[in-house]
Amino acid sequence: MVRLTISIALLAATQGITCASTPSEARYDSPAYNDSSLSPKERAADLLQRMTWEEKVGQLGGVRKTLGRTNGLATFNKTAFDLIHKTQNGQIGLGPQYNYAKDVLPVVNELRAEQLNSTRLGIPYVTITDSLNSMWVSGGTLFPGAVSMASSFNLDLYEQAIAAIRDENHALGVNWVLSPELDVAYDPRNGRNGEMFGEDTYLISEFGTRYVKTMQAKDENGFVKIATTIKHWVYGRGNGGVNRASMEGGINHILNDLAPPYIKVIQEAEPLSLMVSYASVDRVPMSINRYMIRDVLRGLLGFKGLVMSDANSIGYTVEESKVSKSPEDAAQKALRAGLEHELSPAGTGLFTTLINFVNNTEIANMIDESVSALLEIKFATGVFDSPLPSIENLESTLRNERHLEVNRNISRESIVLLKNDGLLPLQKTNVSKVAVIGAYADMINAGMYAACNATDPTYGSSFRRSLVQALGNENVLYAKGVDALPSNDSSGIDAAVAAAQEAGLAVVVLGSGYGTFDLSEFNNRRTDGEGFAHADLGFPGLQQQLLDAVLDTGVPTALVMSSGQTFVLNESTMRAGAILHSWFSGEFTGDALVEILFGDVNPSGKLTVTMPQANGAFPVAYDYLASDDQGGFATATLYDWQWPQVTRYAPLRFGYGLSYTKFEISSPTVTSCSGNVTVNATVTNTGDVAGKEVVQLYYRPEHSVIEFPIMKLIRFYKVDLEVGDSKVVSFTVPTTELGYYVDGEWNVDYGNYTFWVGSSSRTEDLQQLNVTVSG
Amino acid sequence: MVRLTISIALLAATQGITCASTPSEARYDSPAYNDSSLSPKERAADLLQRMTWEEKVGQLGGVRKTLGRTNGLATFNKTAFDLIHKTQNGQIGLGPQYNYAKDVLPVVNELRAEQLNSTRLGIPYVTITDSLNSMWVSGGTLFPGAVSMASSFNLDLYEQAIAAIRDENHALGVNWVLSPELDVAYDPRNGRNGEMFGEDTYLISEFGTRYVKTMQAKDENGFVKIATTIKHWVYGRGNGGVNRASMEGGINHILNDLAPPYIKVIQEAEPLSLMVSYASVDRVPMSINRYMIRDVLRGLLGFKGLVMSDANSIGYTVEESKVSKSPEDAAQKALRAGLEHELSPAGTGLFTTLINFVNNTEIANMIDESVSALLEIKFATGVFDSPLPSIENLESTLRNERHLEVNRNISRESIVLLKNDGLLPLQKTNVSKVAVIGAYADMINAGMYAACNATDPTYGSSFRRSLVQALGNENVLYAKGVDALPSNDSSGIDAAVAAAQEAGLAVVVLGSGYGTFDLSEFNNRRTDGEGFAHADLGFPGLQQQLLDAVLDTGVPTALVMSSGQTFVLNESTMRAGAILHSWFSGEFTGDALVEILFGDVNPSGKLTVTMPQANGAFPVAYDYLASDDQGGFATATLYDWQWPQVTRYAPLRFGYGLSYTKFEISSPTVTSCSGNVTVNATVTNTGDVAGKEVVQLYYRPEHSVIEFPIMKLIRFYKVDLEVGDSKVVSFTVPTTELGYYVDGEWNVDYGNYTFWVGSSSRTEDLQQLNVTVSG
Repeated sequence: MVRLTISIALLAATQGITCASTPSEARYDSPAYNDSSLSPKERAADLLQRMTWEEKVGQLGGVRKTLGRTNGLATFNKTAFDLIHKTQNGQIGLGPQYNYAKDVLPVVNELRAEQLNSTRLGIPYVTITDSLNSMWVSGGTLFPGAVSMASSFNLDLYEQAIAAIRDENHALGVNWVLSPELDVAYDPRNGRNGEMFGEDTYLISEFGTRYVKTMQAKDENGFVKIATTIKHWVYGRGNGGVNRASMEGGINHILNDLAPPYIKVIQEAEPLSLMVSYASVDRVPMSINRYMIRDVLRGLLGFKGLVMSDANSIGYTVEESKVSKSPEDAAQKALRAGLEHELSPAGTGLFTTLINFVNNTEIANMIDESVSALLEIKFATGVFDSPLPSIENLESTLRNERHLEVNRNISRESIVLLKNDGLLPLQKTNVSKVAVIGAYADMINAGMYAACNATDPTYGSSFRRSLVQALGNENVLYAKGVDALPSNDSSGIDAAVAAAQEAGLAVVVLGSGYGTFDLSEFNNRRTDGEGFAHADLGFPGLQQQLLDAVLDTGVPTALVMSSGQTFVLNESTMRAGAILHSWFSGEFTGDALVEILFGDVNPSGKLTVTMPQANGAFPVAYDYLASDDQGGFATATLYDWQWPQVTRYAPLRFGYGLSYTKFEISSPTVTSCSGNVTVNATVTNTGDVAGKEVVQLYYRPEHSVIEFPIMKLIRFYKVDLEVGDSKVVSFTVPTTELGYYVDGEWNVDYGNYTFWVGSSSRTEDLQQLNVTVSG
Repeated sequence: MVRLTISIALLAATQGITCASTPSEARYDSPAYNDSSLSPKERAADLLQRMTWEEKVGQLGGVRKTLGRTNGLATFNKTAFDLIHKTQNGQIGLGPQYNYAKDVLPVVNELRAEQLNSTRLGIPYVTITDSLNSMWVSGGTLFPGAVSMASSFNLDLYEQAIAAIRDENHALGVNWVLSPELDVAYDPRNGRNGEMFGEDTYLISEFGTRYVKTMQAKDENGFVKIATTIKHWVYGRGNGGVNRASMEGGINHILNDLAPPYIKVIQEAEPLSLMVSYASVDRVPMSINRYMIRDVLRGLLGFKGLVMSDANSIGYTVEESKVSKSPEDAAQKALRAGLEHELSPAGTGLFTTLINFVNNTEIANMIDESVSALLEIKFATGVFDSPLPSIENLESTLRNERHLEVNRNISRESIVLLKNDGLLPLQKTNVSKVAVIGAYADMINAGMYAACNATDPTYGSSFRRSLVQALGNENVLYAKGVDALPSNDSSGIDAAVAAAQEAGLAVVVLGSGYGTFDLSEFNNRRTDGEGFAHADLGFPGLQQQLLDAVLDTGVPTALVMSSGQTFVLNESTMRAGAILHSWFSGEFTGDALVEILFGDVNPSGKLTVTMPQANGAFPVAYDYLASDDQGGFATATLYDWQWPQVTRYAPLRFGYGLSYTKFEISSPTVTSCSGNVTVNATVTNTGDVAGKEVVQLYYRPEHSVIEFPIMKLIRFYKVDLEVGDSKVVSFTVPTTELGYYVDGEWNVDYGNYTFWVGSSSRTEDLQQLNVTVSG
């Protein structure tokens, strides 16, 4: 096949794109499904009975990779598109993230218009995309990664960020996102942890609920702005920390360790769709796992939205796990299990084979349900009713002042200060020169599901560029030292050491991640993201060697980490005078780092994942089961491995993060009455600068029916305090919320409880409260 | 309480022990339970109805730590014993492993006699002990560890070894062992892997069946010689590789990944008892897990024997997991779950609290069942009928010629040669001096459940001592180099390097384990065993530094590993000209190593666990699920971590091991008929010396209902071949054996299968055969 590749400009010139057709006029004699006063369900039912078998089966898939990219230009391959969209025309995507929104919109609008104007019923596509910390094409506001924004523990700020991302997507005509990820960042080896919110299910629930509510906010016409997809049901504790790995999956484990974010988000925010994971649960791949979809998700948890596959996941049941004998067999198994839509980014999906089952009533009925589910999303989001998006609106929406301001705010709160021996904040009057060292100092490391070229300055300021702006080029001595990727070239270390010595102050930025606009190098030029599992939790390549050499000089040094993952901080690393984790960057993370280094911003981020302190010493999540902490006859425990850590081992735990001021949490009280437990505590800023503290509430029942973690987060609140100010933080928790699932039934223990209130999950940061809860 | 400690000698002298009372005479007017022609069940039923409530409850526990040890002497604390045995008198143990059998027997015989003569019904204790690779007191034949003997892949030889261990135990009056371990050595971090047979459930099944059948062989009077305890139901894939850690536990996972050894051993060998694990399964600790005991173990798997706790495991449900509210609550929960006997080595058990439930019919009935189960073991093993063991028989049994010969034979086959660049076998004529380096070169590292003092020469020859015997003291330059335990003292490395250079040939023995007779140091002077989880899979302490220094000299070097665990063999380590794993040592492992080094014995051991080649890159077991191997977009897979291993990563896999000769496996054929699959292959010794090869058969159905591993071992056979000789190895596998459990039902797929026959589980060592299996 000869691949036809034409540039956008050529296409637009020769074909004359119409950008603002209004599909609700002129094309129909007003059948019921065109009546926007009817509910999406009613409209879908009306439309469904007008559709042919082929039209129905076509709705089960779509074309995600509409555009391509060649020689740095957005390209559109009409032949390839037409080949696929004939049998898969439920949705379209935007193609690779490397293209710019302004180049993408005309092409996608043309496809939308063609679908409306050239098909029998003119059923529109719905446009679908991933969207974690930005649109998933270039040109929008680039926020820090999901794990970064969660580190702010600031739900209101996060909501503002998601509203900005929503509006930028909406201006492109995106009405459906493949986000948020409700997965649990449990295994530090997992290369996707940076896409998640953290290791705690309550925290994930809170951020996930905000994401879904904000994205699905209704417009002035009552249409959901953007449908969301909670994913990946279920995932996060796969074997070996590997992306698509199996999970053993008892029901108590699933419902208590993995499902809570789904339960809360479904109940509180009604996400319109859900994506299954690649994982197999108890040896049954999720794409064909009827029990986990129909029984647990639908039956027990009451999910009402559309259920979709992950990319190619139905096919993997044939090719890899071999639990399906053929594409037809897999498609039927998936449909019977409850899958209603297929994501097949690379070509023809397996659901297209269902075309052969026209005489199978069971299959046909399930396909009717599946098509209805998709049509309801289209009706709910106004795809049938709204005009195509305009370039003008796109341009006025993307990167507007409000979005950039929100981004600056959340970037400042997403950085976590992990160690400070007094080095920070730097005093501008004392600092003449700064040595900036490390490849990650000069890139925007935004993660693989962000639209970003790590080394392209148009994507914002790297830390180096931000510092140059603050201090002047002559005062920033940059030395890359070693490559970001694995390499044997240590020749740059000497120059880095010399720079540190010359400046008398060093900031070393190490990390994992990276990214590029070059598709052919996409996988070779990164060390994190989907597809990666980190056997070694050190810094990739020779970065540790670089850090050690700088620290050996004795020059005061701050270490900044950049990535979606946690790293082992070994004894050598801990010599750094200050350590910060900036996670995946947004376009203003470099600026925020400079503001924090010099004390213009007081850091307030907290860890949402526990930092392991030894390779192989995991899991390390703070909310472990008592039985997991029992390794030893002598002193050995899971967090205290007998060898090489002979003495108790204290990782930097969930909820931990330092400030430039001091907070005192005093006079905590707990009461239980009228079905609520109420915990009050006074927080006082006893230090020298204004700052924000995250007050955290944890609990454990004294006795439980099945094993309960040693503690669980149940509330948090971020409080902003001027010097000397106090505020009373009050948490009210309905007693019914204190429970857990026992074999599928919600159970609340009545009796004694311990609550802990404090500034992190570390014992030394918590105050204990005892209360009796009665039924 | 003043602790009374008197030496054995004193006790014997002052109290006049009667060693050979015959309890079946004189003491009863021949009630039915004394009639050995009745079945154990009938005798137990008769006895039960004669017992008081207190006598019944007393049978639910025992006193395991009868003896103690002070200042190197066996001691007996009668006050402490009497205090416990009043309420726990079902069984007694032998006390710590450090005492000698000849010192232990008189004390234990006195206790036995007292119980027979001074109690109302004279119900004897049954004597219980751990027994993995020896008696669990000193003075017997010390075989290599369980994982070592399994590495022989020689079931007949293993059976001979277990027969010897059985007879030595029996001579002490032991009638019940807390072995074998059917756990799966799946996580390389687990400190108990050396007590297990390996990572493959078929291999475990085969060795476990031999153990149970051999131990439970009947004597001339029809009594079972020694009752066995299969354990730990279920265990082996706990969270983080930690000993007592939780497992997530879906039923397909449990039945297919963990239960197969139980299923086979129960069906083929009828073990008389079973011990539950410390683990919680799906958040329910096994000690109170009614579903896993009554439903799965009893109901589905049909286990008929006694079910017991692990040491203190019922108590942990109160103190740690807090799923029981009090000792009484825990005892009831355990009883209801199906536990019938409590192991409470350190003092009073929780089952003693059941004394308060005399008026509770449900509890009383369950206690009747529990007491019957124990009495049946006592009747089945002849405890009621046989005379007490005599010192004379003990002395003629322990370490007899036959036992030592079997031990030499299995020691030779338990060592695995992992690498040989031609260094081995050494030619005696070419070797003048050998540098022997490393702390493990001069100890017997037999594991914590072996009766052994690692540094006591009476326990056999260390490698160093064996080599001195072979070459003369003047030709063995020993340098310990660094300590076996973690230490910062590298001062001995220079001497080791000098010894290597002087000798021109080095054997470096590194490991993990160790042991001591000093109770107070028992946990501080080891780095492996129960209670340990290895975050780092390198060699403890400075051993790697020692090895690196020796290898840096360029002197030809063989590395010998000594331990129950696998180690990461890094690039530096792989420079060694030859690498052997000798696992946990027996008393002749040192001799066997010398025989192998010089070619007097051709090595024939094979790995029963896959060696990881990167820390954190686990699990590594060969029989992974297809979904676990899918880490990446690019080249990343579980066994091929994207970073730091960018290219495919090939660990030394299950079944792998080298020989000094070459074997060719040719003309393999497969046929399927009459309900059997038959695979034949010709094995030829094409090398220069006689040797033994383990022919291995693996399989996978083309399609399966739920995920099936990428391959599973189904048969193996060890063949002994002179130079040039050939043998046809024929494997017959009933079709019904090819299945797996789907939600509790056994399922066999009919259709296409792949079988692989070869010398290891590595692709390059296997030949593939395809066959269609019909129902």
